[in-house]
Amino acid sequence: MDELGELKKIDREVYLLRHAAAVLGWDQETYLPPKGIDERSEQLALLQGLAHERIISDRTGELLDKLGSSRESPRGRYGTADLDGAFLRAWRRRYDRAVKLPKELVVRLARAASVGQAKWAEARKASDFPAFLPFLREILDLTIETAGRIGYAEHPYDALLDEYEPYMKTSEVDAVFENLRRDLVPLVSRISGAPQPDDAFLYKDFPPEAQERFGRRVLDALGFDRERGRLDVSAHPFTTTLGYDDVRITTRYNRNNFAGALFGSIHEFGHALYELGFSKSIGGTILAEGTSLGIHESQSRLWENLIGRSLPFWRYWYPEARELFPDAFGSVSLESFYRAINRVRPSLIRVEADEVTYGLHIILRFLLEKELIAEKIAPKDLPEAWRNLSGELLGIVPENDAEGVLQDIHWSMGAFGYFPTYALGNLYGAQFYSALRRDVPNLDDRIAGGSYSDIALWLESRIHSHGAALTPKELCEKIGGGPLDPSFFIRYLEEKYGRIYEL
Amino acid sequence: MDELGELKKIDREVYLLRHAAAVLGWDQETYLPPKGIDERSEQLALLQGLAHERIISDRTGELLDKLGSSRESPRGRYGTADLDGAFLRAWRRRYDRAVKLPKELVVRLARAASVGQAKWAEARKASDFPAFLPFLREILDLTIETAGRIGYAEHPYDALLDEYEPYMKTSEVDAVFENLRRDLVPLVSRISGAPQPDDAFLYKDFPPEAQERFGRRVLDALGFDRERGRLDVSAHPFTTTLGYDDVRITTRYNRNNFAGALFGSIHEFGHALYELGFSKSIGGTILAEGTSLGIHESQSRLWENLIGRSLPFWRYWYPEARELFPDAFGSVSLESFYRAINRVRPSLIRVEADEVTYGLHIILRFLLEKELIAEKIAPKDLPEAWRNLSGELLGIVPENDAEGVLQDIHWSMGAFGYFPTYALGNLYGAQFYSALRRDVPNLDDRIAGGSYSDIALWLESRIHSHGAALTPKELCEKIGGGPLDPSFFIRYLEEKYGRIYEL
Repeated sequence: MDELGELKKIDREVYLLRHAAAVLGWDQETYLPPKGIDERSEQLALLQGLAHERIISDRTGELLDKLGSSRESPRGRYGTADLDGAFLRAWRRRYDRAVKLPKELVVRLARAASVGQAKWAEARKASDFPAFLPFLREILDLTIETAGRIGYAEHPYDALLDEYEPYMKTSEVDAVFENLRRDLVPLVSRISGAPQPDDAFLYKDFPPEAQERFGRRVLDALGFDRERGRLDVSAHPFTTTLGYDDVRITTRYNRNNFAGALFGSIHEFGHALYELGFSKSIGGTILAEGTSLGIHESQSRLWENLIGRSLPFWRYWYPEARELFPDAFGSVSLESFYRAINRVRPSLIRVEADEVTYGLHIILRFLLEKELIAEKIAPKDLPEAWRNLSGELLGIVPENDAEGVLQDIHWSMGAFGYFPTYALGNLYGAQFYSALRRDVPNLDDRIAGGSYSDIALWLESRIHSHGAALTPKELCEKIGGGPLDPSFFIRYLEEKYGRIYEL
Repeated sequence: MDELGELKKIDREVYLLRHAAAVLGWDQETYLPPKGIDERSEQLALLQGLAHERIISDRTGELLDKLGSSRESPRGRYGTADLDGAFLRAWRRRYDRAVKLPKELVVRLARAASVGQAKWAEARKASDFPAFLPFLREILDLTIETAGRIGYAEHPYDALLDEYEPYMKTSEVDAVFENLRRDLVPLVSRISGAPQPDDAFLYKDFPPEAQERFGRRVLDALGFDRERGRLDVSAHPFTTTLGYDDVRITTRYNRNNFAGALFGSIHEFGHALYELGFSKSIGGTILAEGTSLGIHESQSRLWENLIGRSLPFWRYWYPEARELFPDAFGSVSLESFYRAINRVRPSLIRVEADEVTYGLHIILRFLLEKELIAEKIAPKDLPEAWRNLSGELLGIVPENDAEGVLQDIHWSMGAFGYFPTYALGNLYGAQFYSALRRDVPNLDDRIAGGSYSDIALWLESRIHSHGAALTPKELCEKIGGGPLDPSFFIRYLEEKYGRIYEL
């Protein structure tokens, strides 16, 4: 076997081990009997450990050296920009990051995060930040050490961000978010000053079975292939890939909330469609994954918000929803329904935020975690800093830490650098959607006709099929017509909400 | 780490890998989207391969040698008959069997069996034995080679039987089955001459949802712990162990059959209770498994037949069944119901056989496969030999091969030596039940009162807790009061069916 063949064999084993672990993870969130959790954690740790061993093995490093791989360029010994070149680039990046972290540090951080999550959950319940503080400190110290080990050119946060949004620099996020903030804050304030639509009818009684039936009808129409996927119920909705032909999503039903499960399902469908769209030529390799969390989120947000919360979409679906839920929607016009599902209200909790204010929640977190990692702000000063920023950005201030600095799980898991990808997703999504609108004629008519196959086809051929063969930057240049540009998103918001709120 | 510690580490990894594979296997039979099957097979092959590598590694062999392990005796360097001794014995047996088989032979047999299963399914559909013959020949040749590699003292079938029923010899099965046959054939003939109870009401309309509700009520009462297990639906009912605290069973509902799903569930519950009962002192090791398939089957049959098809059991449950299914059972007395679920009828198909004739189906297969392995009968002569034996043992002759030699999947999978364990299970079960009846006072009253906890406790402390720390022989001596003795089973049948058929 030649060197490339040998590396591909290692790649295949890692790929299969990760999917096997995903099966165990999916089962854990859906059907695992309660007492099965202890051994399941051990099973998962073993499979993840076996994959990790293969990634950091000396042989993997030798092969990558011999094959002339580089993290910065797809030009290895093989081709210039062909798939083998992209394969080597992706492996070099994976190897370099993994091999720089001593096992002992990885284990300490994993343990601290495991304890941290439990302590965070307790502290949030009691709204008691000081109770969480010592654990946050330890996680943060280990995360800063991790960033140092991985290395960075400009800012220690670069090393962390790169885990989730490969090749993006903190300074780039700074610039993009500054633009976003500049435009979002006045837009939110104009909207807040306008009369608010009534949305009380979205919180009436919606029997879960009927919600599920309607949700499945929508997913089927969008093109979720039940021969290659499943929809189940879990406490926290997610998408997970268990195989090239096996991508599963979950949702949860709340009897008094029409929008939650439905838009959640459409969101996860967007993720799933990405995972189901990798071309056969990269299937089964390291390249068969989303190229970044930001790009992944662009796909979920595009379906959830740009399509799912659009007027044409509901022109098609509202009659059916109305028939299914006559008590709630019987006397509500399409236009009123459309305004209700797009109601904007600055609120304290990120996961409940609308698509306009959402970005401000993210900017807040990004600013704080960047400073934490650079040790420019001490963890003990977080609650106050949070309150100040919340006032500046959202115009409201949490009365307690449960609704403020303790609301998200991410830091307790050591997931610093993750938050920006949520907002980047909205920006990438709007930029791609603008290209899609240019390429697919009569887009709104298609959506109003309940036909999505041309949209799905466009997304597959332009975005999904590439997987991680193109970096996020390359993809955005190629498909989005240039570097990431927040003005697409702002223009979309101004048009849509200008009309809804008659600004 | 000392040598025993090192072996225990290997053992732990194999244990976890096998359970991880079981998760993938369970998912495959229950929830896997149809197109996910190809990659799933690869994932499973990888995990099984990783476990196998560890089992046959040179280091495993060295450790077993240094620790003075022996297949025949639990006296290793550690203790005389303590758990470490039993641990070493079990590992020596596992290692010796695995290491004797060249990888190339294992792969060839696995491939032949994979093809064989597909060809068997086609051939059975068309009732065309000659179409299956060449594939059966190849599987048989490879199986005979396997037996030769493993080695045996008396009969090549010994090497195969030992896989499923450790430490039992073909000659012992010969003797036991001869006794069984001698007593069963005249009993069946006496029953066949008696008037038959009506059982048409068992095949009326039983909505699956109601069947499921009733089945879950019964399983809960029997003591199936939902915190450590699950019940799901699959095409072929099975029990599988995914973790020390995670044992799952499946069933299937047929709208026009009351007994199938219910007794199937109770049967699988018996298997599950065994798997859930291993003592903590052997949990997570090679000893945490059923000591043989025969002993495993004794547990499922004991619950399904000795308890589940008893009159006291239905004294408790029949009123509830009647309330749930008034159309079918409204005018049927308890006694009539009890006779119906125990109706004996010699039939062609093993999986539909009652508990009296069942053993004859097994004896037929055992006699044939023993001769096949010893090359005393040619595969081409199987259909005729089957018909002859069927006439001798059951008094009926199949009109086609689908209902005869092609009815079971086992040979197409290369599972020679498996069949006897089904009948051994009935025999062990009756022998154990006799001891249980001696130790637990007023057994029938407890069952008639819907109380099973003392039965479960007895089974756990006497049988389940030991796992594979005791061999089937040791267990039978210790709990059954002597070597395996078919007269317990015969006495049980004669008493029960003597009464039902008024012989």
